[in-house]
Amino acid sequence: MGSPSTAPWKQLLLNSIHSNSHLNHSSYFQLATVASNGRPSNRTVVFRGFQDDSDKIQINTDSRTRKIDDLKHCSFAEICWYFTDSWEQFRVNGKVDVIDGSNPDPLKLQQREKAWFASSIKSRLQYLSPTSGIPSVDEQPSPVPTLDPSTSPVGVFCLLVLDPDQVDYLNLKSNERLIFTAGQSADGEKFWTREKVNA
Amino acid sequence: MGSPSTAPWKQLLLNSIHSNSHLNHSSYFQLATVASNGRPSNRTVVFRGFQDDSDKIQINTDSRTRKIDDLKHCSFAEICWYFTDSWEQFRVNGKVDVIDGSNPDPLKLQQREKAWFASSIKSRLQYLSPTSGIPSVDEQPSPVPTLDPSTSPVGVFCLLVLDPDQVDYLNLKSNERLIFTAGQSADGEKFWTREKVNA
Repeated sequence: MGSPSTAPWKQLLLNSIHSNSHLNHSSYFQLATVASNGRPSNRTVVFRGFQDDSDKIQINTDSRTRKIDDLKHCSFAEICWYFTDSWEQFRVNGKVDVIDGSNPDPLKLQQREKAWFASSIKSRLQYLSPTSGIPSVDEQPSPVPTLDPSTSPVGVFCLLVLDPDQVDYLNLKSNERLIFTAGQSADGEKFWTREKVNA
Repeated sequence: MGSPSTAPWKQLLLNSIHSNSHLNHSSYFQLATVASNGRPSNRTVVFRGFQDDSDKIQINTDSRTRKIDDLKHCSFAEICWYFTDSWEQFRVNGKVDVIDGSNPDPLKLQQREKAWFASSIKSRLQYLSPTSGIPSVDEQPSPVPTLDPSTSPVGVFCLLVLDPDQVDYLNLKSNERLIFTAGQSADGEKFWTREKVNA
């Protein structure tokens, strides 16, 4: 009974976010996926917070980016989040739920809308740009798009929700390393085990 | 004839390394691989320079780490290198050559030895630590290892050499994005094409 217990690594991560928050790039991490040709791919993305009170990590992206194709092929991803001031690394592995405008679940569509309105107008404007990754034509500058702040998420706006099942924490100052692994109890509730390992 | 032309992205990367060199973490990047279970994995590693005058990227590692198993399963990796001061990202995809002490090629063993002696004594000492990732026993502190500076590479020391075949460059200040792709000419020489794309 009661609310599910908080993941034991979440407070560690919140502490790191807090102690590195004076650095603009502290909310950036690298997201690795597997492409349809079987090769790894890796790019920097922005942390958009935890979903509600859960341990699920949110990322906004454009449905035209290659990571969407990657995630259709293999739905697992690994975040590598290195905090440059506190010398801490979090490797977060889990399954990613890709929520675009065609999602049949009204609750998920609501989460997508919430993520859209939580991002800045400047961020939202990026989704109105010409197709990312397509050869650019310098001669024809595209018009600067404008956006009504009350406009609903545009079609290409996509919310990614990573549901962690392993977190590997490394502190390079103390040389401490902890591996957190998710399990499921008999009543179906997610629980976490923690193991201290050699760095 | 003459020496093969320098990869066109290499000078861009050298400029970024130079302009961010006041930051200790500027030589750190994230290396994504594919684990034997098909899932992506991702961790921070240290740039150990280009191999001789080539465009191949060197990384030192311990043969006991999981990335070695990953690379045996799938020899491709993608580096994501974000420069926090200049707001530039390089995504470098290529095949990785794993060079450990059992390598039959004398030239490669020589490269491995060169990489060993190029790293600091402090770095070399890490290879004498108890097995990384194995549960630690707090009650039995391991003795502090010592190392003769002239000692040859220890058995677990491993040189990784990534041979790039695609480099995706993104400048978040200018919004410029360039994709460099390697090809092979009729006489077997590697050449690079460059395409400007929408960011």
